[in-house]
Amino acid sequence: MDDKIRIGHGSGGSMMQTLIREVFIPAIGNPYLEAGGDAALLPFPEGALAFTTDTFVVNPLFFPGGDIGKLAVCGTLNDLAVVGAKPLYMSAAFLLEEGLDIRVLKMILASMAGEAEAAGVPVVAADTKVVEKAKADKVFIQMSGIGQVSSDKRHLSSMEKLVPGDVLIVNGSIGEHSVAVLAAREDTPLLCPAYSDCANLTGLIEEVWPFMSGIHAMRDLTRGGLATVCCEMASLRRLGIKLREEEIPVLPVTESFCELFGYEPYYLANEGKVILAVEKTMAQDVLKIWRAHPLGKQAAIIGEITDLSPDEVILHTRIGGKRRLIPLPGEQLPRIC
Amino acid sequence: MDDKIRIGHGSGGSMMQTLIREVFIPAIGNPYLEAGGDAALLPFPEGALAFTTDTFVVNPLFFPGGDIGKLAVCGTLNDLAVVGAKPLYMSAAFLLEEGLDIRVLKMILASMAGEAEAAGVPVVAADTKVVEKAKADKVFIQMSGIGQVSSDKRHLSSMEKLVPGDVLIVNGSIGEHSVAVLAAREDTPLLCPAYSDCANLTGLIEEVWPFMSGIHAMRDLTRGGLATVCCEMASLRRLGIKLREEEIPVLPVTESFCELFGYEPYYLANEGKVILAVEKTMAQDVLKIWRAHPLGKQAAIIGEITDLSPDEVILHTRIGGKRRLIPLPGEQLPRIC
Repeated sequence: MDDKIRIGHGSGGSMMQTLIREVFIPAIGNPYLEAGGDAALLPFPEGALAFTTDTFVVNPLFFPGGDIGKLAVCGTLNDLAVVGAKPLYMSAAFLLEEGLDIRVLKMILASMAGEAEAAGVPVVAADTKVVEKAKADKVFIQMSGIGQVSSDKRHLSSMEKLVPGDVLIVNGSIGEHSVAVLAAREDTPLLCPAYSDCANLTGLIEEVWPFMSGIHAMRDLTRGGLATVCCEMASLRRLGIKLREEEIPVLPVTESFCELFGYEPYYLANEGKVILAVEKTMAQDVLKIWRAHPLGKQAAIIGEITDLSPDEVILHTRIGGKRRLIPLPGEQLPRIC
Repeated sequence: MDDKIRIGHGSGGSMMQTLIREVFIPAIGNPYLEAGGDAALLPFPEGALAFTTDTFVVNPLFFPGGDIGKLAVCGTLNDLAVVGAKPLYMSAAFLLEEGLDIRVLKMILASMAGEAEAAGVPVVAADTKVVEKAKADKVFIQMSGIGQVSSDKRHLSSMEKLVPGDVLIVNGSIGEHSVAVLAAREDTPLLCPAYSDCANLTGLIEEVWPFMSGIHAMRDLTRGGLATVCCEMASLRRLGIKLREEEIPVLPVTESFCELFGYEPYYLANEGKVILAVEKTMAQDVLKIWRAHPLGKQAAIIGEITDLSPDEVILHTRIGGKRRLIPLPGEQLPRIC
């Protein structure tokens, strides 16, 4: 264990897992927190609550396809949706750097308001703190969200129903969020523009609620991307995961970005992509429903759960090879969310 | 309206009120947010929820009587308690500066854990982000809290029951939190040590639940202190407030600090003080109960609600004068919470 915080400790990779396991859990751990899903599921008189929190530190604040405000609202809604909750309320705490242009704040708020209104989920509690110049970076937003859970959806975040044979489906092409943010940050010349996939997935996820009995796991593919989520799934349930490279949707702009900079799309962050593991018998129905939804047009079956290589995520490549995807220690691209 | 964010915009004073009114509310406003209490009160199937959020940016991280971790937990619990809620769950989002000593993080977490455990309220959701050096200041913590509200307590945050004749009671001496933080920050030589009053007030507040029907308002005296809360009460209900200087408990260390630096104790921040407005007939009973509680030994009746000077808070001084306490535009001491 390091004795100083490094950028990689905020990455979603194995350095962050170590920090959580060795520093946070021993201090403030409890079964709800240790369950480690995208939102905590909490008993509540006459029902159950989903409760999630996230800080958004994306740099730059504005990027093709979104901005920190849209990102914060969508990220919060998505974390509730993937545990099977109906989002009800959000809170927002703003940490502002002295000297911030208030027009920038207004643009961010307008974007948040638009997303929140479209979702019908109000920001009901808020806080503002201002710190001195160079003690923050323009705007950080911390959002929490509360959702309501019906009891038959509670197994989703635990992944305890995952079994060999389950089919993995994603709702579209991976990696665009990282590409869009990095291109905006570095003023990177790309052959064609990249747009973040930042989107509120609650509608898309509601479409598959009728199949909830056969959906054994659901996660959004944020920090660390597809590979990191698959590694977590595999290690949590000690099962193997087989991914087929030729089936994983990747846009040409993402492919050329990866070639240019030496990244792999499987580790790039998404803000509008979700993976689910579903019983084989239901897979085609789920795929069909998602493909009919605007946020699932490129949905694809990309692999399955196996019992052949416990704890391992194996990518079957286009040229017939096999390659193990391992958890990265840190993040390829810090501050993308 | 300024076009840049200034330190005063995070103060709890009138600059912050302007920012909220002109920038935040037009963008993300809704009745729950605009109610403006310490926590939002939300309808929920079979009950009501209280939901609060705050970012903690105190500098320094450790001060006599507390630290940012204790402050975050107590502040969150208190915001729920003052709206009449029983705190159930908390979330914590950590924003860490690259290079932070992990021992410092561990000390903060241990402090949070101690307070959370003593209160029986777990941290059920958490998030960690790391930003580059000089893009944050060591540690910022954002906490949200959920509490359960029984319907007879819902009027507390609206203050709509305030009437002339109501008696104002505080649970002890004011201002020590600001004094302790500033002394720690500046290495200010004080004649005697100052300790923050940082404390979880839920137990103290539960003691007066039997009198809830006669309690017409309750607020904790954080940013902006006693004067700011009284000004808000007066302006919200268009009533006058009379405060008696000789009855307001102020420790000698706070008095000498104020004399030395030109502050007024009424504007100093507290983290373990609450004011309530109660029907005159119940005032002595409430006072007696609080004085029997460890956090209310110095409780005092400090004034009353009047109909003589609508919107005005009038301090009746020791020497027989009258002085109006007005809302400050910014904060005397930034980053005290």
